[in-house]
Amino acid sequence: MTAVEFPTFDPTVAEAIRAAPGDQGLMAMLAVSTVEVGPGRLVCRLPVTEQLLNPFGAAHGGVVSALADHVLGAVCLPVVPRGSWPATTEYKINFLAPAYPGDMVATAEILSLSKRMAVARVEVVNQGRTVALAQGTVTIVPPREATA
Amino acid sequence: MTAVEFPTFDPTVAEAIRAAPGDQGLMAMLAVSTVEVGPGRLVCRLPVTEQLLNPFGAAHGGVVSALADHVLGAVCLPVVPRGSWPATTEYKINFLAPAYPGDMVATAEILSLSKRMAVARVEVVNQGRTVALAQGTVTIVPPREATA
Amino acid sequence: MTAVEFPTFDPTVAEAIRAAPGDQGLMAMLAVSTVEVGPGRLVCRLPVTEQLLNPFGAAHGGVVSALADHVLGAVCLPVVPRGSWPATTEYKINFLAPAYPGDMVATAEILSLSKRMAVARVEVVNQGRTVALAQGTVTIVPPREATA
Amino acid sequence: MTAVEFPTFDPTVAEAIRAAPGDQGLMAMLAVSTVEVGPGRLVCRLPVTEQLLNPFGAAHGGVVSALADHVLGAVCLPVVPRGSWPATTEYKINFLAPAYPGDMVATAEILSLSKRMAVARVEVVNQGRTVALAQGTVTIVPPREATA
Repeated sequence: MTAVEFPTFDPTVAEAIRAAPGDQGLMAMLAVSTVEVGPGRLVCRLPVTEQLLNPFGAAHGGVVSALADHVLGAVCLPVVPRGSWPATTEYKINFLAPAYPGDMVATAEILSLSKRMAVARVEVVNQGRTVALAQGTVTIVPPREATA
Repeated sequence: MTAVEFPTFDPTVAEAIRAAPGDQGLMAMLAVSTVEVGPGRLVCRLPVTEQLLNPFGAAHGGVVSALADHVLGAVCLPVVPRGSWPATTEYKINFLAPAYPGDMVATAEILSLSKRMAVARVEVVNQGRTVALAQGTVTIVPPREATA
Repeated sequence: MTAVEFPTFDPTVAEAIRAAPGDQGLMAMLAVSTVEVGPGRLVCRLPVTEQLLNPFGAAHGGVVSALADHVLGAVCLPVVPRGSWPATTEYKINFLAPAYPGDMVATAEILSLSKRMAVARVEVVNQGRTVALAQGTVTIVPPREATA
Repeated sequence: MTAVEFPTFDPTVAEAIRAAPGDQGLMAMLAVSTVEVGPGRLVCRLPVTEQLLNPFGAAHGGVVSALADHVLGAVCLPVVPRGSWPATTEYKINFLAPAYPGDMVATAEILSLSKRMAVARVEVVNQGRTVALAQGTVTIVPPREATA
């Protein structure tokens, strides 16, 4: 993998994500927290509780998707220009194994970053094994449009 | 689109989905209900409430993903052989517009069905416009393995 | 599916695609021709010849991908503003059945079109059955950048 | 990334791929050769010639897709049980930069392998930069069905 550099990385934004990742909306409902945040890299945790299980004792796929979706977009927050907004355009996810009660940890890494777009990959781990792999595109919406 | 037939459609299973789609796990948490279920087709509704909004007043992408994920797998339930289990293997989703408070309605249609696999497409609509499009693969796990 | 309108459709560009779709590069090598072109819709044909077959007598998946990729980007040509360029950003493809000798016909339809982006779906048919389904994103590169 | 093991790796099959990767069909037409093959890993090369260029001097996206598609399926050949067949079920590809004349090198790595399925990721490099990233699913078709 050729190296990607992140000259626009803003540690202040990173610190804000570390402090309050899931303070609102679905991420708060799912009790998502940030484990690690750095240039082009974000790790978040979601506790798979009884309440999230399907009739087979595993987390609903939507829980895995939601966490993957979150880290995919949020990993871009510290590296987009101030005022811009990273909008998740699309992603693809493969489910490899069921996620059982315990922590589910998702790691997102940016593999390509241009002025207009980022491409990142995500790995979701539960009980020591990879339960999902995702790859997606984040559009960097410039300030004018972001506020329009 | 060449026609797909569903000789294995089981109206009893369909009726069960209509009656109780989201009685457990994330779907219950998100108050998902079934609007329509037929051979190779499923329509579900999710009320976008204040609680699900991100700081910009739109639903978190994970909410849209979760609903898309749900209909993608559940549309297969009435057409797989008794004892088999439809496991969502992977999907891809494009986000086209933000989803605002009000109903979000997802329609899944099976476009291909073999003994081993189904491919379905999903459209998610909110406030009269398409907010997301998905396409995914569902593996039909035979009874032995499903119970193993 | 909510209706998509194409006020920017340029019949002159459409006519150019109809006349000479595969006059260069891989599309010429694969003898791709245009069957139909209209607002938000493009149909192209590729003859599956002996030369393209794998050891099992079916076309290599790369042939199917190449045709899907072509129609996905080219369907946008007549609807992007003059001077802009549709760059295929990503797509996802499901292979449903092998493609055997004879015509392979791909139909692309634009399902969403904004100033910056189009999302289209593709169906590929061979011998009366659907052999592949794709969904992808095309970025509309503005004139400045297109010529840069 | 949790480690994946390949106890079923067959060096004889690997050697056959090394010796004759693109001896037929589209891969022969595109002059694809094998650079490296190992357990869960395959590297192939495609020379981007003048003949493959689009009007903008870059390789048609279909060329990149075809190479990605090839390594995605072929990386599974040495690890599937004898008599089984790896059928590429689906994949998703992001195009990051144009591919210009010179070598285009694709590396596939298997990230998950079960009895029924493999998930692999692909990186395509040209002139020292990543031009595409893919992720896909390969179904392992058992002998009975493969010969049926």
